[in-house]
Amino acid sequence: MTASHFEGIRRDVDRELNRIFDSRRDIPQKLLESMMYSVMAGGKRLRPSLVITAAEAVGGDRKAALPTAAALEMIHTYTLIHDDLPAMDNDDLRRGLPTNHKKFGEATAILAGDGLLTLAFEVMAEEPPGAPVGGDVLVRVIRTVSKAVGALGTVGGQQLDMEYEGRAADAEILEKIHALKTGAMITAAVKSGAMLGGAGERELAALTVFGDKVGLAFQVFDDILDVEGDAKTMGKNVGGDVKKKKTTYPALMGLEESKKFGNKLIDEGMSALGGIKGETGFLKELALYVAKRTN
Amino acid sequence: MTASHFEGIRRDVDRELNRIFDSRRDIPQKLLESMMYSVMAGGKRLRPSLVITAAEAVGGDRKAALPTAAALEMIHTYTLIHDDLPAMDNDDLRRGLPTNHKKFGEATAILAGDGLLTLAFEVMAEEPPGAPVGGDVLVRVIRTVSKAVGALGTVGGQQLDMEYEGRAADAEILEKIHALKTGAMITAAVKSGAMLGGAGERELAALTVFGDKVGLAFQVFDDILDVEGDAKTMGKNVGGDVKKKKTTYPALMGLEESKKFGNKLIDEGMSALGGIKGETGFLKELALYVAKRTN
Repeated sequence: MTASHFEGIRRDVDRELNRIFDSRRDIPQKLLESMMYSVMAGGKRLRPSLVITAAEAVGGDRKAALPTAAALEMIHTYTLIHDDLPAMDNDDLRRGLPTNHKKFGEATAILAGDGLLTLAFEVMAEEPPGAPVGGDVLVRVIRTVSKAVGALGTVGGQQLDMEYEGRAADAEILEKIHALKTGAMITAAVKSGAMLGGAGERELAALTVFGDKVGLAFQVFDDILDVEGDAKTMGKNVGGDVKKKKTTYPALMGLEESKKFGNKLIDEGMSALGGIKGETGFLKELALYVAKRTN
Repeated sequence: MTASHFEGIRRDVDRELNRIFDSRRDIPQKLLESMMYSVMAGGKRLRPSLVITAAEAVGGDRKAALPTAAALEMIHTYTLIHDDLPAMDNDDLRRGLPTNHKKFGEATAILAGDGLLTLAFEVMAEEPPGAPVGGDVLVRVIRTVSKAVGALGTVGGQQLDMEYEGRAADAEILEKIHALKTGAMITAAVKSGAMLGGAGERELAALTVFGDKVGLAFQVFDDILDVEGDAKTMGKNVGGDVKKKKTTYPALMGLEESKKFGNKLIDEGMSALGGIKGETGFLKELALYVAKRTN
């Protein structure tokens, strides 16, 4: 990773998130604290970084992409808060800190998630400060993101994930769950960045293929990490997903085949960028990092 | 009520809701059933009717307002699903039927709410079928609705409502909770209808005052109904809100003063419509019905 470049993006995203919350200090105090607690809990800002890097790859202005970048982080955070709830995955810890409902109670956690999701759409519908973006582009971004994170995307993926927990799923179902639950939002990050950066239709199509491939690769390597991470730190070949009886790529096709499949997806994604005339180096680098992240 | 006029609107809203769900049959089955169960559970479609009636009052096309009308019903439904959850109001019945989590389980109910909220924004961002509406108008509608139903609106109101349950609240807090929790969405319904109907800025300002007054009146009469409804059917002067120790207008200012206050708000709302040149009769009639509904 070109660390300083991506640190700069991350700083800009955090500044944008702070700007958004600073202008909404009238939110009931406990609710505001709960929303900010999870948003500011040290996420890596991968989705926002994809938005910005895609916008810049097609020659766009970072300022035009920042609100939507922040919005995607808020949406990602809301999914984590709701997924952690007792009725869902019932997790007590997230990034080494108490989960939202452990800290603020279940009711506030549900509302913090609802508030973040709604705020994300409010932010996406605002004219980005300092950058003119037409209403037609903004509604197109909202359409793209809402499709990706709704009942035919992230929300639907979580539903299927829960329905198949403890049951055997075949490769088709597995791929569908992953595509919906995490892949769709990664694709949407790339696509919305491209739109906000002023991409033409051909560039947009290329970046959509890129996003799809990288999104699926992300999940394949996530499954691999679940096996290998534990193998290294705990001295045994059993990860959390295996314990929860979730079907994973390594369980389906073996560890080595999974790695081959993940790498093939990344290669295909990179090839799709061939037609983009702008600087795609950072985007490729980020995508590799996102897909193969080691923590 | 001019019954046939409003029955026609209601039919159109239900047809629009069915159109929206029909084109999304790929939503995981249980999730789709859960979303539709609550949306189709016999709501009176008051918020959608306000959207459409406001649009038509300024001479707009019903087709332009229908998607947002349906979206507001989906948002209203999501708030009911989440408010009914065990961690919130813990209600088992809603409109005489099992609440969503009683029927589908808590996890699916949370996700159905999330899915409906997200779908609402997707629908608002789409070009209304058969009616040209510019992207600038659509983003303005999305801004209006998202502000009204988020952490500075409905979600924030629910947070405060829960925080003050069992505690004494003064008139200022009470008015704030009501304004956020229910008034804001009613105002947003009127405003977004006006925008989609092509209202000018002066008409929009007048309809905003109208919406604010009617929204607050709605809650005042809701409190009154809670006292009087029970008095009639149960033979005693104690309603559900009193039992839950929620502060109400009758508790604060007495029953007769509450009625005077509610009626004054409605009068002020009606006066605000003086500057509207279109046919405001249906809007006035609907507002009176919404505020003083008897069931």
